Amino acid sequence: MVSKSQLKYIQSLGQKKYRDEAGLFVAEGPKLVKELIQSKNVELTQIFALNEWIGENKDLLKSVNVTAIDETELERMSQLKTPNKVLAIAKKFEEKEPRIKEGISLVLDTIQDPGNLGTIIRIADWFGISQIICSRDCADLYNSKVVQATMGSISRVSVFYTDLPVWLKGQFGVRIYATMLEGKDVTKMSTIKEGLIIIGNESTGIGQEVLPYSNEKISIPRKGGAESLNVAVATGIILSHLV
Amino acid sequence: MVSKSQLKYIQSLGQKKYRDEAGLFVAEGPKLVKELIQSKNVELTQIFALNEWIGENKDLLKSVNVTAIDETELERMSQLKTPNKVLAIAKKFEEKEPRIKEGISLVLDTIQDPGNLGTIIRIADWFGISQIICSRDCADLYNSKVVQATMGSISRVSVFYTDLPVWLKGQFGVRIYATMLEGKDVTKMSTIKEGLIIIGNESTGIGQEVLPYSNEKISIPRKGGAESLNVAVATGIILSHLV
Repeated sequence: MVSKSQLKYIQSLGQKKYRDEAGLFVAEGPKLVKELIQSKNVELTQIFALNEWIGENKDLLKSVNVTAIDETELERMSQLKTPNKVLAIAKKFEEKEPRIKEGISLVLDTIQDPGNLGTIIRIADWFGISQIICSRDCADLYNSKVVQATMGSISRVSVFYTDLPVWLKGQFGVRIYATMLEGKDVTKMSTIKEGLIIIGNESTGIGQEVLPYSNEKISIPRKGGAESLNVAVATGIILSHLV
Repeated sequence: MVSKSQLKYIQSLGQKKYRDEAGLFVAEGPKLVKELIQSKNVELTQIFALNEWIGENKDLLKSVNVTAIDETELERMSQLKTPNKVLAIAKKFEEKEPRIKEGISLVLDTIQDPGNLGTIIRIADWFGISQIICSRDCADLYNSKVVQATMGSISRVSVFYTDLPVWLKGQFGVRIYATMLEGKDVTKMSTIKEGLIIIGNESTGIGQEVLPYSNEKISIPRKGGAESLNVAVATGIILSHLV
């Protein structure tokens, strides 16, 4: 059973303002919640789940506070179109400063679509990239669509928000690659071990205040009629050639 | 002005049953509609647009039937969360048989998410692939989310639905690549000029009835913690290495 005020509180976490105030976010579905329970980086404060799911996951739940709910309650608190058995409330990660000059990091300029941001975090995780630096106008990491699209990678990739031009200005001696429509053919480049790879907005590209900090323009050669690629797809292609 | 019955009719095209009956589909937004008007492969039967858009696009509209509507009417007929100035009704393409053994074709097994199917069509178009063969349980090409996600590539890529195992059985002497979690490292393969590339469902992979027809298993090497890649992202990576 969930009280009315609890329900209201959970629903309020759909908005950034209330997430920031509470320092909490919501994650849903068996696969994602299981990953978060098993992660050392994420602290869950509360789980709401159908009895069926609780029964199947008793071993997982030893140190977590679980409340059994019914489908109607889940539907009311869920932000998904098709609620899926379990919803967890988690503490937002502490913000640290981005580490500098360790391996490859992604830099995202104005990636505003939550689904794309989440998918890019999942791609970074696949390629072993542990750090993403975002411009302040990127989607909020704790937006439920971002959280869901990461498929659990949110617990393994550190995401920072900063004033990009200011931050890039301080990156001395780091190779900075800018992904553009025109640039060096990435399919013919050798892999790299270090550097920053900047990905820009799908329609407007990398901002004029960010671009001057790059040392090298790279691009994915186009062979057909489409004007552009989805930004997450482009990120996947760039990383598969460079990492 | 739009009549109530017209509005109802347009709304009904949100459902496959009515699209099939009418042989029509809906496309929305300035960029997509402009691409369809300019395409030789698509016949538009009617455009509904705000006066602002009509004024800006007079040259385009010489041979198309255009009705001016206001924002409230557009909102009622649109299937988008944020309706965008113009909505077009187009004739579904005639279904032809897939051509055989010309260049590279994509084969999609059970790609049910409309956004992923549309994004894959856009990726195919970017890489100059003009033909996609879908299993019958893939999302419907004319679903509005598919149409929107193609960003206009729907007019340049031919998409066919067929019984995959039966069709693949007839492809003698064609090289057939199956994209899997375990297989030959695609980043180390040479490009190909001909062949079929099978992409399977994100969670269940390529079906057991389809897999035996492949000659070669290929995969994207994983370097980090994510269990899988989004299927459209994986398709983009595979094509960027093979095409």
